[in-house]
Parts: sequence; C-alpha cells; structure tokens
Amino acid sequence: MHLEKKFAKQGIITPAVEKIALAEQADPELLASSVADGTLTILSHRKEFFCGIGAHTRVKVNANLGTSPDLCDLNDEKEKLRAAIHAGADAVMDLSTGGDLNDIRKEIISSSTVPVGSVPVYQAIVETIEAHGSFRPMTSDTLFQTIEKHAADGISFVTVHCGVTRKTLDLLKKSKRLTGIVSRGGAFLLSWMLLTGKENPLYEEYDRLLELARKYDLVLSLGDGLRPGSVADATDTLQMSELITLGELARRAAEQDVQVFIEGPGHIPLHQVAENVRLAKTVCAGAPLYLLGPIVTDVAPGYDHITGAIGGAVAAMAGADFLCYLTPAEHLTLPGIDDVVQGVIASRIAGHAADIAKGRAGARDWDDSFSKARYIRDWEEQERLSMDPARFKKLRTSHPIPPDKVCTMCGKYCALKVLSEALDISLPHF
Amino acid sequence: MHLEKKFAKQGIITPAVEKIALAEQADPELLASSVADGTLTILSHRKEFFCGIGAHTRVKVNANLGTSPDLCDLNDEKEKLRAAIHAGADAVMDLSTGGDLNDIRKEIISSSTVPVGSVPVYQAIVETIEAHGSFRPMTSDTLFQTIEKHAADGISFVTVHCGVTRKTLDLLKKSKRLTGIVSRGGAFLLSWMLLTGKENPLYEEYDRLLELARKYDLVLSLGDGLRPGSVADATDTLQMSELITLGELARRAAEQDVQVFIEGPGHIPLHQVAENVRLAKTVCAGAPLYLLGPIVTDVAPGYDHITGAIGGAVAAMAGADFLCYLTPAEHLTLPGIDDVVQGVIASRIAGHAADIAKGRAGARDWDDSFSKARYIRDWEEQERLSMDPARFKKLRTSHPIPPDKVCTMCGKYCALKVLSEALDISLPHF
Repeated sequence: MHLEKKFAKQGIITPAVEKIALAEQADPELLASSVADGTLTILSHRKEFFCGIGAHTRVKVNANLGTSPDLCDLNDEKEKLRAAIHAGADAVMDLSTGGDLNDIRKEIISSSTVPVGSVPVYQAIVETIEAHGSFRPMTSDTLFQTIEKHAADGISFVTVHCGVTRKTLDLLKKSKRLTGIVSRGGAFLLSWMLLTGKENPLYEEYDRLLELARKYDLVLSLGDGLRPGSVADATDTLQMSELITLGELARRAAEQDVQVFIEGPGHIPLHQVAENVRLAKTVCAGAPLYLLGPIVTDVAPGYDHITGAIGGAVAAMAGADFLCYLTPAEHLTLPGIDDVVQGVIASRIAGHAADIAKGRAGARDWDDSFSKARYIRDWEEQERLSMDPARFKKLRTSHPIPPDKVCTMCGKYCALKVLSEALDISLPHF
Repeated sequence: MHLEKKFAKQGIITPAVEKIALAEQADPELLASSVADGTLTILSHRKEFFCGIGAHTRVKVNANLGTSPDLCDLNDEKEKLRAAIHAGADAVMDLSTGGDLNDIRKEIISSSTVPVGSVPVYQAIVETIEAHGSFRPMTSDTLFQTIEKHAADGISFVTVHCGVTRKTLDLLKKSKRLTGIVSRGGAFLLSWMLLTGKENPLYEEYDRLLELARKYDLVLSLGDGLRPGSVADATDTLQMSELITLGELARRAAEQDVQVFIEGPGHIPLHQVAENVRLAKTVCAGAPLYLLGPIVTDVAPGYDHITGAIGGAVAAMAGADFLCYLTPAEHLTLPGIDDVVQGVIASRIAGHAADIAKGRAGARDWDDSFSKARYIRDWEEQERLSMDPARFKKLRTSHPIPPDKVCTMCGKYCALKVLSEALDISLPHF
C-alpha cells in the first residue's frame, strides 16, 4: 500500500506532493512536513488528480451530488458533476440514496476529474431497508463491507460518524436542542443504536476502520453526526462532546498513518464561527477542518448558499480548510444544475475572500489583475479573469452594450470614463 | 421647521421616535438620547414612515434604484421599487441619470412607503451637460438649487460628497491606486474641480448645505467619493483622508442639529472590514455608518450580492448600521427586478446575521420560531416565517412533494423523520 502520510513522515516528496506544490505555489518540503504532522491532508483520485486540504494550500470547495429516493436520474447527476467541476469544485461527494447506488458511484468516479467522497453508511442502511423493510438488521459487517466496497471502487474519502456513541444518547435525552439531530448519518446510527441497544460500530471497531483506511490509503472524514441544525443549538454540549471524541480519534488515525479531516457544523451564529474553528483546530491538533456552510441564520431557505458563504468566509479566514457548499435548494429540494453552479461559486467566493485575507500566495494577484482590467474598461480581459465568465458575459450582454467601453449601469456617466477624460484634458501628463 | 435632533436634545419623544421604539422593541428615551448624541439617525418619509438607523435598532438595508442613460423606463423603476419594498428594503435611493429626472423622483417618492434618498449632484451634472454639452459650466448655485429641489420634493436623505476637496487632487496624483475613483459623484466633482480650478462647493460652502438641511430636516449622507474600487486600494491614504474630513463635517452638522450618516466603501479585503468599521466609528464620533457592500473580492461580477453580503455581515457585526445592497448585476448592467430582489435579500441576510451575533432584541427569536417549525416539519409555518416565502414555496414545490412531511432532498431518509420515529419506538416517553 502507498500511504501518503507514511512517506511524508520519512521526508519523501511523493508525486502527489510535487503536483500540489506546483499548483499551489508552495514549497514541497513544507507540504510534506504538513502531511506528516497532520495539518495537511491529500486526496488522491485515480492516482492522477490530487487535492491538498489544509496548511499552506488554498481553501477548497466540495460539491455534494447524488440522488434521493424521490429524484433519481443518473444522467442528471453526471450533468451536475460536470457543472460542479466546470464551476471550480475541488472535490465532490456522492450522497446518493436512490437508484442503483453501486452503478451511480462507479459512474461518478469514472467521470470525475476531482476526488470523490461518499457516506457509506447511507448505502448500508438503504440496502438493509430494501432487503428487510427496516435498518435494524444492519450489522457491523454490512457497514464495514460497504466502506470497503467504496474504497475499492476508488472513493477518495468517506464520511464516518465515529463520534456518535452511546454516551450521545444520554446527552441527547438531557439536551434542550431545538432541532435534535439533522445529520442523516448521525440520525441513522443513533436510531440503529436505540433500536438494537448496541454501540456504534464505527466507534467500537475504530481500529478495524483504520486498518481498512490503511489498506486503500482512504482518507477518513470524521463526521459531525451531532452538528447543530439551528443557530440556537450551536456550540452546545452534544456538539462539543463529539468534537472531543473526534480529536482523540484523529490522534489515533495519525499514529496509524491514516489521513483525516474533521467535519464541522452546520448552523452557527456569526459571532461563534471563528471560535468554533479555533476550538476544532485546538482539540484536533490542527487537523484540516471541513465545514458544511456554516449558515449564520436559519430563516433564509432558498438563499442558503449566501447564508453559508457568509459563515464559510469567516470560518475560512479563521482557519477552516475545506468548505462544503450549500445550494439555494438546501432544506427544500434536491439541487438542480443551476443550484449546483450557484453553490460552488458562492463557496469559492468565500474561500477566495479568506485566502486574500490570510495573504495566501497568489490570491490577491488575481484580484489585482482583474482590477487593472476593470480600470481600463477592458471587458474581454475582465470576462476571461472573472470567476464565472459565462455569467459575466450573460449579464454584460443582457442589453445592447453602449459605446465608449462602459456598461448600462452608469452608461456615459461611468466614473472611470469621466475622470480619465478630465485627467486627459487638464493633466495630460498625469 | 421640525428638527428631530433638536427635539431629541431637549428630551422630547417625537412621534417618529415613538413609532421606531415600538417597531424595534426599544426604549424611546434611549432612542431619543441616541438621536441627541448622533449615534442614531431618523429618516422620515412623508411624515408618515420612519426608519431608525444606528444605535439600538436593527441593521437596515437600502436598495438603489434609478434609470441610466441607456436603460430608462419609469414603469420598470416603479416595479423595482415595489419589488424592493416587498423583499424588505428599509429605504431606497433614486440614482436616476436618464429620462425626466424630476418626474421619476416625484413618482418614486409618491409610490414609496420607505424613505427615499438621492444624489442631487447627478442631476446637476446631467442637466448642465444637456444644456451646455459639458458639465464645466455647472455652478455652485446649480448644485444647491438641485439639492433644495430634491428636499422640497420629499427626499429624506441626500448623498453629498463633501469630503472630496482640492487636497484630494494632490493625493490622487501621488497615489498608486489600481482603480482610481469609482464613485460617480466623486469622479464628477473631481473632474469639475480639475477643469474649473475651483474648490468643491459642498465642502467650501458646507454651512450653506447645513442651512438647507435644517430648513427641510434633510439627512445628509456624507458620501465617500474616494472609496476604494478594488481590494488593493482599500484603507489607503485617499480613503482615510476623506474619512477624517467627514468626521469633522459630521461634528459641525451635529452642532447645527443636522442628522447625518457616514458612507463607507466599497471594496475591502475581509480581514480589514471590521477595522474599517471601527475606524469610521471612532473618527466620526459614533455616527451611523452606511456601507456599500463591502465586497471582499473583485473577481466575481455576477455574484456581487454574495460578495457584498459576506462583507456586509462582518461589517454589521462590527457596528455598521445601514447596508446598501449590491445586486448580481453590479459592475455589469443596470439591475432588473429579480436582481433587486436577490440584492435586498442578500443584504437582509447579512444584516440579520449581524443582529443575531450582536444579540439584538428579537433577532434570534425569529430563527428559533423557524427552527421549531423545521423540527416538526411544519412546512406551512416555515414558508410563512421564511425571509422570502415566495421563493421558499417555488423551490419546495418544484418537484412533487413526497409523503410524510419530508422534502425531495433526503425523502424518506430525512434525518428528522428517522430519529423521531426511532425515538417513538424505543423511548415512547422521551
């Protein structure tokens, strides 16, 4: 087996590290030492496409794809995959729960040019329900076999809700949460534990999970099954107790040369976002942090890509490494293609704003090049440099374009045009 | 004349203060004392609709409307006005530069149920160009007469770029700005000063402006003609020198019982947003701060409502009081109706997220009510409580709705449904 982390600990610069160093304008030795100390995690897709998440790299964006029981069309999902990658997603997750799950996963993996993640517990549960009418008969073996199938198919990272334990059930009974458990994996595992009286196999047999991860150099995304589902529930005992468990499990993974990242919420009020990130980084010894949003208010379904971009930008500035997009469809319906694009771009804006704020190599250069083109009203160059050139062009050409290289917003009263003409007349040598 | 600030200094609770106190769950005496000390500014529209901007009140949102030389249709603008108010704008500005400007302004004022602002220098310039083929012949009298006409028509607040002075021209020559001057008002005034050799009348004759403001209890929005137009230009000498001038002018206005707020940028990298707000508040003795965005990256035209919501949320959490929306059309074309809605909602999300973060009375209650409805999967109540019920409904019904009060995103595998059923079975009394 090829274990990125093991090589890194030996100071070996692997092809993955080399490629990432080049793409990120980063020093390969610094990257390798960050993989070794667990602050950088490398995702590898078909041993050809690599993505660095964590220290000394750009903030990354994940797009969730996948069918649901009610909306299930493989071609739609492949279209969304293409749209997500074209919009700039750095990774995707296949969260399918409807249709032929094996087929969908394999198609997404083979069609993707970015790493693909999954949540194997969904398939284990769905197939148990399909076979037995209930998920109660699911066994630990079913779960681990499903994880292994995903890894063997070429999945780069799996969400494993290892921090959901029987202790959680006691805390849940005492908790005053408004929205209970909103993670599907968390809810399924807790329900299974409630109905069977058993401990979560992903926690109880964590060494078995680590062994499996070593076999495939599979990255474990330590899932937040207890994430808050409302700003009221943020940073509560349930969330914190899971985080502490994840910190301990991250340490054990590192000892076994298994790469991880930590999943985080969710719904967090704006003033708690940065402290949540710092807390997760402290408790998990600097392991890369993967956030869903966070969304900073509960009341704006239809716009959760915006609500999530606000939280994501502040989180990434505070150190979050990997932003899972939210789309305008979140909380309402399965996203369509346009939702996917909107979601990816919103998260990219958040990540890029944070990269600028943190002084990431090359980040501000992009803005400066763009702004130079804007100043001289070079619209072709602006379109080329813009984050979504197709949308730029669509809006720019939505009405007849006026003369003098201006736009229809200010027209001939364009500030840039007015002042440059006055300067030409009054200060020709300025 | 009825001067809100004069009454406030005398400890009188005016009808405006009373109405605002009721709407904002705030103590009227506290509001009056905030008007007196200049940290709260009251906008009044047709002596019937009032809006408090600043201390002890909710963050407010402004929507810019108005024609351009190339896109000029009064009915369109009235549609946008209705859409903006329906989406929750607290104020609008008529920035028209095309068509019959007097007619458009009067129609917007009479159709609006929220305060209307304007930028009279636009009309003064446009009409001078129309009469003389150049704006050079504009006189100080033209400018002040135009301001008075706006005030007499019922405009509640005017942007006046008083901080653009001849000293600015010297600084501009020395500056290394990437994007020069991007404020239309700033560019026109500087160009006029360059071509005529004169000082800015709004600065030179500031006492005349204050007298006019007293006559109509007109609120002065001290404009940021030198705001940065790129993240590279943020927080530079030009911006800071204007801010210091505005601080001095705000002090002089307060002495004359004239209410003001301070306009701010613009383009600011995320790590400088909070410090910009604190700086403006310090320099301007806590006067309410009115921000355009700020946008935190230059490269995402087509999505500047999102880029602006990120900056706006962080700014408002740091103390900004009034957010001017950006729409998806910003930098590209005049916004259409859907752009207006998107822009208002994005800014409202930013403002509300900040109100939650600051612990504003009532802010979190909205989220908590919403989340309680979400937990029990009461979709009618969620729709009713959501920030944009029409959009909520549109997305929710975009596909056939599955049974069991779930949505098409997770369907029968809904986390809330799964766990509540398991709890019913295993812990019926939980």
